[in-house]
Amino acid sequence: MRIFVVGYGVVARSFIDLLEAQQSVLYQQQGLSPRLVGVCDSTGAAVSERGLSADELRAAKESTGTVAGVAGHGVRTVDAAQLIAECDADIVVEASPSQMSTPGRSIENLKAAFRTGKHAISVNKAPLAAAMPAMLELAEFNGVQFRFSGTVGGGTPVLNVARECARGDEVTMVRGIFNGTTNFILWKMHSEGLDFDTVLKEAIDLGYAETDPSADIDGVDAATKVVILANYVLGRPATIGDVKVEGIRGLPRERIEEAAQRGNHLKLIGEIGEALSVAPQEVPIGDPLDVPASLNAITLSLKASSDITLIGRGAGGIETATSVMRDLLDIWNVIGGRS
Amino acid sequence: MRIFVVGYGVVARSFIDLLEAQQSVLYQQQGLSPRLVGVCDSTGAAVSERGLSADELRAAKESTGTVAGVAGHGVRTVDAAQLIAECDADIVVEASPSQMSTPGRSIENLKAAFRTGKHAISVNKAPLAAAMPAMLELAEFNGVQFRFSGTVGGGTPVLNVARECARGDEVTMVRGIFNGTTNFILWKMHSEGLDFDTVLKEAIDLGYAETDPSADIDGVDAATKVVILANYVLGRPATIGDVKVEGIRGLPRERIEEAAQRGNHLKLIGEIGEALSVAPQEVPIGDPLDVPASLNAITLSLKASSDITLIGRGAGGIETATSVMRDLLDIWNVIGGRS
Repeated sequence: MRIFVVGYGVVARSFIDLLEAQQSVLYQQQGLSPRLVGVCDSTGAAVSERGLSADELRAAKESTGTVAGVAGHGVRTVDAAQLIAECDADIVVEASPSQMSTPGRSIENLKAAFRTGKHAISVNKAPLAAAMPAMLELAEFNGVQFRFSGTVGGGTPVLNVARECARGDEVTMVRGIFNGTTNFILWKMHSEGLDFDTVLKEAIDLGYAETDPSADIDGVDAATKVVILANYVLGRPATIGDVKVEGIRGLPRERIEEAAQRGNHLKLIGEIGEALSVAPQEVPIGDPLDVPASLNAITLSLKASSDITLIGRGAGGIETATSVMRDLLDIWNVIGGRS
Repeated sequence: MRIFVVGYGVVARSFIDLLEAQQSVLYQQQGLSPRLVGVCDSTGAAVSERGLSADELRAAKESTGTVAGVAGHGVRTVDAAQLIAECDADIVVEASPSQMSTPGRSIENLKAAFRTGKHAISVNKAPLAAAMPAMLELAEFNGVQFRFSGTVGGGTPVLNVARECARGDEVTMVRGIFNGTTNFILWKMHSEGLDFDTVLKEAIDLGYAETDPSADIDGVDAATKVVILANYVLGRPATIGDVKVEGIRGLPRERIEEAAQRGNHLKLIGEIGEALSVAPQEVPIGDPLDVPASLNAITLSLKASSDITLIGRGAGGIETATSVMRDLLDIWNVIGGRS
């Protein structure tokens, strides 16, 4: 199976490493022999029909600043969509950086894959937030598989577990903590009695938060995950515009203290009920959703059965790479182990 | 698809109700039209090629004390294995009461199904605790499907989630609270400062614990789930004899108080690591495994990724019935929607 990876950030590199490390296991257990036939970053690409190794890509990136530095296989281009359309990969992994404000390029990349009959895995949330119903439809129309497990919960298989719970029952409501950075901030504000700006600065210094933390603290990242769950688990065609969003920017410490007096912790909760929303909500201390530090958690309410909660780390390059691997195996199984 | 149900307790009745309630959805979404062709309880059976309704079974049980009271379809027999072998069902649901000390009959029931080419779903833990490696082998040898989702976690899809996590990664360790009754007892001893005997009596009065609570408080029930997880998720052929078991019978309140002074809660933990064990262990307050009341929880440690925890109610007739339904759909999909 020939694989083309868009992007060369932490997730992409971890996935490429994992692919090499598991090469023999994948073949023995699944009959799958993946070959990495192309990788592109923001300034160029490496393309090789015989396959690229993790080492040569890493060396090229370190010495020349781009994977296009791989000897004999470099392509200087910024047009990933064209490369995708023209390459002979079976599957495209869209792992370019998620930028909510400009999903255009990643949408074009996925469209190029679908139109040319290639399956796709996206770990990039932006195209789903902006246009998930259309992307799902386009994949179906072209008869290709489309997966995106890594977009919600990192390595925690939130989407598949939620679908699993929905089988033989009905998911009536979803509530969750879908952003580790904001959970860390709220947890730290409470446990150490600090104010918002102090903790945010610390989170940025520690690398828990981006230098521009807007997507996290304004609730946009959580809202994206609400969109993906609503579409995938509940079959509700939604985009980011359908989510009512309130973040935690500048949240006064008093709100946290008042919640504590009522026996609650304040959490940034994404909710799929009658409506879709993201907002600070109080959660009883000791509730399964009352998770510390930067953990994520999701509670599914079911019609026949009782609540189910899944807790895990929501991010991390290696974790998310395992999600891409699961998606790859899913697609391999669905297409019947061909090619 | 013709279904034969062994047992007519809460899970069996809930499953039969669910089957009727979802009849049209199952057909529309999955092309599956299940027909209940037989049910047996401890003194007799009802068998009908044209199908049995939930109402007639319930009415017969209420008026005559056995499902054999169904007019025109009653069979007075206590030999479920023979009925299973002779009936023309496609799938057998073994939902007779789990009695760890006498798994013989349920093992015979499953064997009868396998030998006569019938798929099986067991919600009865006893045959798995005693002979899971052999049962798995026998099902495979006879080319039939065998599922048992309801044996661990009730309606919480613990087994499938654990397998899902194992795909594309490796489960290195499993720790969990697999028995709701003992979690309730330990939680109540701590939160209300009561001693073991007082809480146990209350749990029995409230119906949380069986009149003979041995399987719960001696750790045998939890050990059974350890066995099932070890076999199914980690591929380790084990039976109950391989688990080192220590329960909580007569546990002194001081142990709980000492744990609390160290910032921990005492929990009955089932563990699959180097060895298989069940024993009271201290869990840090606020840890994902630190769940209150009668909740169950499982934490999977993975090789590449970080820990994942699943929390849910571990028991309940309706919950467990949804697991049987998931197993039924799994089998339906695996066999390609035939018959």
